Amino acid sequence: MTTTLLQPPYYAVIFTSIRTEGDNGYAEMGEEMEKLAQTQSGFLGMDSVRNGLGITVSYWQTEADILNWKKNMQHQYAQKQGRGVWYAAYTVRVCKVERHYGFEAEKGYV
Amino acid sequence: MTTTLLQPPYYAVIFTSIRTEGDNGYAEMGEEMEKLAQTQSGFLGMDSVRNGLGITVSYWQTEADILNWKKNMQHQYAQKQGRGVWYAAYTVRVCKVERHYGFEAEKGYV
Repeated sequence: MTTTLLQPPYYAVIFTSIRTEGDNGYAEMGEEMEKLAQTQSGFLGMDSVRNGLGITVSYWQTEADILNWKKNMQHQYAQKQGRGVWYAAYTVRVCKVERHYGFEAEKGYV
Repeated sequence: MTTTLLQPPYYAVIFTSIRTEGDNGYAEMGEEMEKLAQTQSGFLGMDSVRNGLGITVSYWQTEADILNWKKNMQHQYAQKQGRGVWYAAYTVRVCKVERHYGFEAEKGYV
């Protein structure tokens, strides 16, 4: 779980998706893209869960960092495969995180 | 999956969490809170997945709607139970959705 990494404002990309049947190289590409994202300028962290519906939230310092990542050539190829093969449907939401807070059972609010 | 319901800007609350062991009334309260949220002013939709890590994203028309929901008495009680019993850790992020787009395999970009 990506905790409160820096002071708002920062950016979040909320990606919700429904997969097609079968893996078709999806798992391998997912791992590659997660590694590649971590090397990108302004990348702050990522949380991802799938259980039928998938929700992946990635965090970025600025909106320009998000646009750069979207234009990355290897990522462009993955996006194309996503539309052609892996996803029945998805939504992308680009958001400005205006405030955040966290809680840990042993520490209280963090 | 909550698709693109209205034109940005609108608001999203990203709630990531790690549960404690055992149900302890969590599932029942979760259902109640989801129903209650749907009756709140400005509620637009909700996406929720758990697979170890949990990510729930709720969508709201304005930030005031989010604050009203946070202050709802039944929700306040659930929040207190959350901190005392159900969650080992959580984060809450309040975000302004600045732009969004969607894709459906049969329709293309939507």
